[in-house]
Amino acid sequence: MVLRQGDDLFAQLAGLAEAEAIPAASLTGFGFAGQVTFGFFDFATSQYRPRGWQDVEIASLTGSLAWRDGQPALHAHGVAADAEFRCFGGHLLGLVVGRGSLELTITLLPSWLERAVEPSIGAQVLQLGTQPG
Amino acid sequence: MVLRQGDDLFAQLAGLAEAEAIPAASLTGFGFAGQVTFGFFDFATSQYRPRGWQDVEIASLTGSLAWRDGQPALHAHGVAADAEFRCFGGHLLGLVVGRGSLELTITLLPSWLERAVEPSIGAQVLQLGTQPG
Amino acid sequence: MVLRQGDDLFAQLAGLAEAEAIPAASLTGFGFAGQVTFGFFDFATSQYRPRGWQDVEIASLTGSLAWRDGQPALHAHGVAADAEFRCFGGHLLGLVVGRGSLELTITLLPSWLERAVEPSIGAQVLQLGTQPG
Repeated sequence: MVLRQGDDLFAQLAGLAEAEAIPAASLTGFGFAGQVTFGFFDFATSQYRPRGWQDVEIASLTGSLAWRDGQPALHAHGVAADAEFRCFGGHLLGLVVGRGSLELTITLLPSWLERAVEPSIGAQVLQLGTQPG
Repeated sequence: MVLRQGDDLFAQLAGLAEAEAIPAASLTGFGFAGQVTFGFFDFATSQYRPRGWQDVEIASLTGSLAWRDGQPALHAHGVAADAEFRCFGGHLLGLVVGRGSLELTITLLPSWLERAVEPSIGAQVLQLGTQPG
Repeated sequence: MVLRQGDDLFAQLAGLAEAEAIPAASLTGFGFAGQVTFGFFDFATSQYRPRGWQDVEIASLTGSLAWRDGQPALHAHGVAADAEFRCFGGHLLGLVVGRGSLELTITLLPSWLERAVEPSIGAQVLQLGTQPG
């Protein structure tokens, strides 16, 4: 899958998951982002503290596509690099493709996978071997 | 494969390789580490100089599973990101999953692969097309 | 595929693509580089501004192999880490394997893919669903 300038990664993958009824998938990618936001999870508040960057290379993108409450749910981590080749990264909250493209390799998995909050840690975890309701 | 808080990456993958008799595999992953140790190889001493971090996102993990002297041998590199989204990484010496999870995508390879030290460089190299003894 | 000390990543993959008539492929990798050069695209000049490093771990490598004007065309991004575990990365312009190896996992794609410059952005973009001339 090749995303183009202006494409929103999360919206595009949600649309693909619904259109193709993808049970689950694993993905890797790289490209150029006009806007990328990473977040670091704060267990005290159960919220991600976000920070954004503009016009950076996506040096690495790794993720999985599953379902949560009947909706596609993308979980991805990445590394971005700026014009000075400095890297920053972590949990991906949002990504809009920049002037260039974002190439994704999507490996389909045969089983429906769902994410659910695990109360013991307060964070969502991918559940293997379960089916969405 | 989804690892949970407290799981040791190397021990879990060694157990999987033995339980499932995996000839070899390639893997990618991402998640949250309570403890991660990277090492930089010192050719003068043929040892890795280690350094560890706590409670960091694993932004990228790439590796291969093979065999060495009849034991499963994981070789993996990764990038970790801290609460300020700063990245550090390299050759992975150890990883214990943190409060959250570590998602791994494991692609099985059909042939048994073995690692062996190549005397010319003093480092272990994955040997394609060989079988463990 | 395992590359050895002194191997040039771009030349090796071009040779493989031609020898095996690979229509297209996606790849991930990691290893040790004697020399790596990243470049950041300058849209004003349509050139990559390069910077090189020596003797660094390749913590992550993600790319795709396609064709351009009848020649194999590798597009890859990566993250390198130095002896202090500091990361830098982006668009890969060149990589020569160092004292050690570079392990690549190459996933073949069934269709011939071609890259072409898109005039609207002045950059090359992978074209899905097209065949080389």
